Amino acid sequence: MSILVLQGSTRDEGNTEQLSRLVLEGVQHKEILLRDKQILPIHDQRHTEGGFDPVDDDYDDVIREVLQHDTLVFATPVYWYTVSGIMKNFIDRWSQSLRDSRFDFKAEMAQKKAYVLVVGGDNPRIKAMPLIQQLKYTFDYVGMPLEGHIIAKASKPGDIWNDKRAIQEAKWLNAELQKSGLTVIG
Amino acid sequence: MSILVLQGSTRDEGNTEQLSRLVLEGVQHKEILLRDKQILPIHDQRHTEGGFDPVDDDYDDVIREVLQHDTLVFATPVYWYTVSGIMKNFIDRWSQSLRDSRFDFKAEMAQKKAYVLVVGGDNPRIKAMPLIQQLKYTFDYVGMPLEGHIIAKASKPGDIWNDKRAIQEAKWLNAELQKSGLTVIG
Amino acid sequence: MSILVLQGSTRDEGNTEQLSRLVLEGVQHKEILLRDKQILPIHDQRHTEGGFDPVDDDYDDVIREVLQHDTLVFATPVYWYTVSGIMKNFIDRWSQSLRDSRFDFKAEMAQKKAYVLVVGGDNPRIKAMPLIQQLKYTFDYVGMPLEGHIIAKASKPGDIWNDKRAIQEAKWLNAELQKSGLTVIG
Amino acid sequence: MSILVLQGSTRDEGNTEQLSRLVLEGVQHKEILLRDKQILPIHDQRHTEGGFDPVDDDYDDVIREVLQHDTLVFATPVYWYTVSGIMKNFIDRWSQSLRDSRFDFKAEMAQKKAYVLVVGGDNPRIKAMPLIQQLKYTFDYVGMPLEGHIIAKASKPGDIWNDKRAIQEAKWLNAELQKSGLTVIG
Repeated sequence: MSILVLQGSTRDEGNTEQLSRLVLEGVQHKEILLRDKQILPIHDQRHTEGGFDPVDDDYDDVIREVLQHDTLVFATPVYWYTVSGIMKNFIDRWSQSLRDSRFDFKAEMAQKKAYVLVVGGDNPRIKAMPLIQQLKYTFDYVGMPLEGHIIAKASKPGDIWNDKRAIQEAKWLNAELQKSGLTVIG
Repeated sequence: MSILVLQGSTRDEGNTEQLSRLVLEGVQHKEILLRDKQILPIHDQRHTEGGFDPVDDDYDDVIREVLQHDTLVFATPVYWYTVSGIMKNFIDRWSQSLRDSRFDFKAEMAQKKAYVLVVGGDNPRIKAMPLIQQLKYTFDYVGMPLEGHIIAKASKPGDIWNDKRAIQEAKWLNAELQKSGLTVIG
Repeated sequence: MSILVLQGSTRDEGNTEQLSRLVLEGVQHKEILLRDKQILPIHDQRHTEGGFDPVDDDYDDVIREVLQHDTLVFATPVYWYTVSGIMKNFIDRWSQSLRDSRFDFKAEMAQKKAYVLVVGGDNPRIKAMPLIQQLKYTFDYVGMPLEGHIIAKASKPGDIWNDKRAIQEAKWLNAELQKSGLTVIG
Repeated sequence: MSILVLQGSTRDEGNTEQLSRLVLEGVQHKEILLRDKQILPIHDQRHTEGGFDPVDDDYDDVIREVLQHDTLVFATPVYWYTVSGIMKNFIDRWSQSLRDSRFDFKAEMAQKKAYVLVVGGDNPRIKAMPLIQQLKYTFDYVGMPLEGHIIAKASKPGDIWNDKRAIQEAKWLNAELQKSGLTVIG
């Protein structure tokens, strides 16, 4: 198992990052901070003759990394009841990858599995349900199973440690990932 | 009544734009094409000393326009089961406006009302429900009533005309808007 | 095409019935008033040796009728944000039919298509979304496509006529059903 | 704190009951097995002159018990993606209580808090979201806060013990309830 964390938080050491760290503690993984990458919003050219124009930004690098891992962890704060803009811009560009002749994006993604970590301030265990449903539809579209998700409640820096339930869930997922890792190595 | 259409489509003359046009036919309004504006993804500085740094892009201009209208029409294609990246980036920046001392963003927004128009290709009347729920939570947060939404099915250019039901709903909303307009003017 | 309306309203001539009537106007169909049938809540015996005990009520008659039609219209008021109790009791009993050796329930249902009509009083176009999602999952389980749904707003007797949008949607669906009917006959 | 468990499972010693037991272990509470009560589906007489006819069943007894507790635990298996029929019939009858002049049902309920425990077999952490949303709307209507919910995955008898995550969440909630109890007693 080879894990890539796609980190959608926009601030250093925020609650989402701390939750991610807890989930990945002692588990080998790579992390991409989407905020350190320039990924432009998609310009829909699916129906343009000639298809999508090449875009000069970091999306290609990120997707190349994605393709080299078999487990993706989407970590995002809840911004206005869905994923952060930088996460959304990244996912939107998948439409471009779907038309990319260098690889079969859908077939590649269907070989992976996904986890989702979200942290929100406003009753997220209820109000982040649409966010999860929407990522579920997204992963379904490319045939990638959503293996699990954790929703945590936090707003101000450090709040995450007050969400005992999320902390416990993070430990559960950590144990799962450790176990999967060992299975593969063994 | 003074209507502003916030257009989240990323291509010219797409289905979302055509649906919007139908809804606004004969109704005085202004439209902002978000794709023609540069609006950067938010950098969350809510908890940074000194608050948000000023951002040198078009967000301020757009928000100034928003504040001058009492009815907002959010028009967006369904990209990966939620609003387009450019629409998301725009909404994310509201967090910045909430801390903007030049106006009381929440109080201003609470005076307006919202409509939502979405167009999706993959069973949108079911799979765009999370999108609508999420915008509902968003508008609830600022106290702006969601007066109505239309979900249409279309993918390739021109498809919208095959969705007879959506066309009819667009006409219904058009009549509503015409009526409200007259009431106000009368 | 042979249509069966499964009517989940519990009062005579309520808004749900009036909406149904509008949808079915001039279209040949049969209607079962679930309120006139005695259908007991399920007693889960899926894991009991010997399986389900026979139940002495009207469920069998209703299911026999269901199996003889190729299009099912589920009409229900929104009671506490989901289908009425009598509709729920009816659907719950499908678990029993799934184990009934007299027919292959799932295979039979997968040959049919479904429509849903719901009428609610408390912002149903938003708050009945979970109801629709849940029926969608239900129909998915037995492989029956959900061809369309209408959500109307009404509470007091006769309110339905004030929901111009729903009236128009009912007429749209009526036209669809008339068209399908002709196609089949022709 | 005085806790009432409203048990919506229809079989003895099912997974939902075992989850409930884990949550309530060592916590003083009373449990009502809805399957042992006769609660008829509602007959909507909200708009009938004279209002609701008295119904000769066990609903009144159950509601009397409900009114005597300040914390309600709604435990239900997921049947066809929402609460069990017997749980639905019980909730539907609240419409009758809302018109009952012997007490102010809404005001009474608004003084309580609710927890929800659900157990489903088909990807419940995703597919039981509409169930939770719908109960959330239900509790919102009467002003009763939903303090927390646990979704577990289980189908065959005993399956619940394989859902390590749910077991852990049950223990978390158990600790919460013990703590609240002590606070009150102390």
